[in-house]
Amino acid sequence: MSTQSLNQGGVVQRLARARAVMSQNGIYALLVPSADPHLSEYLPEYWQGRQWLSGFHGSVGTLIITPTFAGVWADSRYWEQATKELAGSTIELVKLVPGQPGPLEWLAEQTPKGETVSVDGAVFALAFARTLESRLKERGAFLRTDIDLLNLVWEGRPSLPAKPLYEHLSPQATVGRVEKLAQLRETLTQRKANAHFIATLDDIAWLFNLRGADVPFNPVFVSFALIEERQATLFVDLTKVSPELRDSLLKEGVTLRDYNEIASALLALPESTRLLVDPARVTCGLLGNLKAGVKLVEGLNPTTLAKSQKSLDDVFYIRQAMEQDGAALCEFFAWLDSAWGRERITELTIDERLTAARASRPDFVSLSFNTIAAFNANGAMPHYHATEQAHALIEGDGLLLIDSGGQYLGGTTDITRMVPVGKVSDEQKRDCTRVLKGVIALSRAHFPRGILSPLLDSIARAPIWADGVDYGHGTGHGVGYFLNVHEGPQVIAYQAAPAPQTAMQPGMITSIEPGTYKPGRWGVRIENLVLNREAGSSEFGTFLKFETLTMCPIDTRCLESSLLTRDEVEWLDAYHAEVRERLGPLLDGDALEWLKARTEPVGAAG
Amino acid sequence: MSTQSLNQGGVVQRLARARAVMSQNGIYALLVPSADPHLSEYLPEYWQGRQWLSGFHGSVGTLIITPTFAGVWADSRYWEQATKELAGSTIELVKLVPGQPGPLEWLAEQTPKGETVSVDGAVFALAFARTLESRLKERGAFLRTDIDLLNLVWEGRPSLPAKPLYEHLSPQATVGRVEKLAQLRETLTQRKANAHFIATLDDIAWLFNLRGADVPFNPVFVSFALIEERQATLFVDLTKVSPELRDSLLKEGVTLRDYNEIASALLALPESTRLLVDPARVTCGLLGNLKAGVKLVEGLNPTTLAKSQKSLDDVFYIRQAMEQDGAALCEFFAWLDSAWGRERITELTIDERLTAARASRPDFVSLSFNTIAAFNANGAMPHYHATEQAHALIEGDGLLLIDSGGQYLGGTTDITRMVPVGKVSDEQKRDCTRVLKGVIALSRAHFPRGILSPLLDSIARAPIWADGVDYGHGTGHGVGYFLNVHEGPQVIAYQAAPAPQTAMQPGMITSIEPGTYKPGRWGVRIENLVLNREAGSSEFGTFLKFETLTMCPIDTRCLESSLLTRDEVEWLDAYHAEVRERLGPLLDGDALEWLKARTEPVGAAG
Repeated sequence: MSTQSLNQGGVVQRLARARAVMSQNGIYALLVPSADPHLSEYLPEYWQGRQWLSGFHGSVGTLIITPTFAGVWADSRYWEQATKELAGSTIELVKLVPGQPGPLEWLAEQTPKGETVSVDGAVFALAFARTLESRLKERGAFLRTDIDLLNLVWEGRPSLPAKPLYEHLSPQATVGRVEKLAQLRETLTQRKANAHFIATLDDIAWLFNLRGADVPFNPVFVSFALIEERQATLFVDLTKVSPELRDSLLKEGVTLRDYNEIASALLALPESTRLLVDPARVTCGLLGNLKAGVKLVEGLNPTTLAKSQKSLDDVFYIRQAMEQDGAALCEFFAWLDSAWGRERITELTIDERLTAARASRPDFVSLSFNTIAAFNANGAMPHYHATEQAHALIEGDGLLLIDSGGQYLGGTTDITRMVPVGKVSDEQKRDCTRVLKGVIALSRAHFPRGILSPLLDSIARAPIWADGVDYGHGTGHGVGYFLNVHEGPQVIAYQAAPAPQTAMQPGMITSIEPGTYKPGRWGVRIENLVLNREAGSSEFGTFLKFETLTMCPIDTRCLESSLLTRDEVEWLDAYHAEVRERLGPLLDGDALEWLKARTEPVGAAG
Repeated sequence: MSTQSLNQGGVVQRLARARAVMSQNGIYALLVPSADPHLSEYLPEYWQGRQWLSGFHGSVGTLIITPTFAGVWADSRYWEQATKELAGSTIELVKLVPGQPGPLEWLAEQTPKGETVSVDGAVFALAFARTLESRLKERGAFLRTDIDLLNLVWEGRPSLPAKPLYEHLSPQATVGRVEKLAQLRETLTQRKANAHFIATLDDIAWLFNLRGADVPFNPVFVSFALIEERQATLFVDLTKVSPELRDSLLKEGVTLRDYNEIASALLALPESTRLLVDPARVTCGLLGNLKAGVKLVEGLNPTTLAKSQKSLDDVFYIRQAMEQDGAALCEFFAWLDSAWGRERITELTIDERLTAARASRPDFVSLSFNTIAAFNANGAMPHYHATEQAHALIEGDGLLLIDSGGQYLGGTTDITRMVPVGKVSDEQKRDCTRVLKGVIALSRAHFPRGILSPLLDSIARAPIWADGVDYGHGTGHGVGYFLNVHEGPQVIAYQAAPAPQTAMQPGMITSIEPGTYKPGRWGVRIENLVLNREAGSSEFGTFLKFETLTMCPIDTRCLESSLLTRDEVEWLDAYHAEVRERLGPLLDGDALEWLKARTEPVGAAG
């Protein structure tokens, strides 16, 4: 079956229906972003309209349809996939490159005077809507955000997810929701606001100590929250909440209302309201429902900063989760070392076995993202995921990259390790060693409290740049506490804007994950999570340093230790000594032996 | 004589006159920035009205006068000086702190509704004027930029400088003005502009291969330039140009007009003009003189980027200038080592002797900035300058910091070295060694072509942060080619915004000058200039590396070499070997002996 016939039929028909509806409504261009009303990373199927309409199934991409053109904008991760999936659909792949005009710029330049662009305001960030509207206005064109054209086209649209809510309980939930709400209201007062609307699901889950399972990997639930001086209201499908939970929330000052009532609740806010919202984290659709007198106070959601700064009590449980996660990996790696040559091992086997090892650990809830098990050439695609249809048999020589993580009641993990398969070549060892040098350089760094995190990226990259090598992704992302594995506001990436909210504060958890990708050959990435800790104060200010949270051996069989400096060897040996000491009590048998062998000091040998 | 009586009389009277003039003109607040129509770093006296009116002589500071308040905003460099100089003047010192509201924000918040703020538009950047006007408008207040109230108050205002222009000639001027103008016109076409107005003096000097001496240290001349498709006009005091120069300019397509005719020339631009200007580099006053149909095309002056990228031909002369400058320093240092205990040496002696050593070198023109010779506690003030009234005798033990530079026909130098005096303490050696580690870390770095330069700062700071130490100034500034010692667009400073124009390109010259300042005790800074050179291309892109241009020993008697890694010792020894080889032929006698002793390898000893 050709790739053409895979797509052509359905998508071409859907496009034709979309264009008919556009024409009936006087719309020149329809914009369909990958987004939901909560601006989430993982979308419930109900909001995967861009996938349905375009046939392109990548998780990020933007569709634009005009009478004579249809295009999907996608970044380099998805070019190969999009090229295949869009073949024969009449939809063009438009390659999205950092620093070059994206889909909104395209609309701003291509929409003729007098014409109208339509996007469903329910899933379009307020900040984007403002920019696009003002750009269109400059050329005498218009933006409509009050109709969901997709809904008029989409037959058999999936329903909203309906998994039950549950509480994140003590002891792992170290601060009660009553106290969190009180702190939030204090912040509102400081910001001269008397109400706050939250659309982002991880902010809501954190604030109310509730979790759900509406999307894979992120333990969140579809909802909105409205915090006023005397009321806190959670808008959620009421069938997802048990009567007991409902009562206990009510006792703690949290009222429940149906998910669909958020629009009328916003409309009912009195004229004296000063409503704090983050324009990048709410959609324009709902904020159309405000009385004229309501004043917007714009800024980061206070919960975003609060949840990024883990308390010492949180860290107590996070260290335990990291140990359990590391122990699960050791069990898995010990099995893998014993299985070579005895069993048929594919990238899917890796995923199954590793998931099983994690699932046997206490307080495990789910994976924190789709496991990436990528052998040789597959490892050169940073966002590769093996499927039933396409995956590699692991045999011969080379490098296996495993990037995986779990959700535990006491924390979220995310770790990447390189596994030697057969003989590892000198070039592969050099690549792994260079990447490790980057990990060590940043892991050892001290830095002023409050420095904007993107500015730290060059410390990790310097040892890699030294060999004329670079990688296209960021070096580090924030990580939640039994929440999203990607959370803000900090990010260690020279490609990111050093905005004020990226300032490094104690308690933040960030990944350090430099890499090297050689297309068609192999990829290398080594990733640990690190915690911002105080490193002392002096006349020069307060400094922070990193505590490495991830506990798992870094396989020295992939390394060329002669390329490491004395300081780097010291760091690696000290790390392995700590890993051995902390994971040893959680392991026995082959796994314990594997741990001991893989944490032997390099310094003694070299 | 008390500091009060130093200032009180004159300034209080001047303020009273200013307030009277303000009142007559219906002005609520008068803003007097430290600026000229060219937005220069060094101001001719004619534009030093803020100094005259406030009595505060620091080079950067902003004065605001209202009926009931007068204040000078100054940054931390000037707090001590301003406190002294403003005492008894009724003018408050307002401490300017990065990230906190400055004078424009103050005006935007304090000006009552209906009132008017006045600033001389001739010296107020267009970008600032737009911001201030829109902020004032929000609260119903107004901005006037069409009157120079200061001129109505200032009796005995100095006249404009009148030093003659001269040509920057071949061979050091490696590209003729005809070719530079042609390239500029090509860039204008690319940017869809057909005219370009330049107010910044170093851009003009570079474009026309002309130099002047209207301000100290920067070899520029007061002028404007207007480049059109068929004309290039230089607006300058015509008495400063010899008839011969005038003829040769005319032959090469450059017309001269009087400096004061720029306003009418802008007014005469036809309605079809698309005028390229940099809103941060032109003042709002002159741009009021445009016909309504003239369209502004806004962006960096093309000359700013062009002159930042030195050609290989330029670099040939720059290396020679650096060698001559280093040789002058060696002669000076040899004399200094021989003079201890025999002569009375003060910070002023240092300045005199060092300037004399430079002046004897071929192609020397002038210093490139005021020499900083700062002993012990004075070194803790990064912008210290010894004066007849206040300078230190250099005796006993400690550290002498010397930051100095010269203008040569073939380049501009800027170098900081630490000199041991008597016994250098262990803590002082640690401070010097740590700073050197920062210099070496960045000097050895490779990095992707086009990276935004502020993002490289953490590479220099990491070894310094590791000890809980930081410094408040940037790590590096761009340097001109026989032009301003501070030039853009690149800057290596985590405090700077990583704007697109800070992208690193081959041929840029930047300083690397980390430091450590211990108030009341001593300061350490080590500074070299480095050149961006290609380091090769691969599948990962094009990389750049630095060539260290500055050639002068780094005194190892200030260092604790056991704190250096093997790589750092290798770098230092290789640098000293090159310095010895390149400076040796330019020296003899004591200076040559000094060079040999001070370039002995550390590695052999350690």
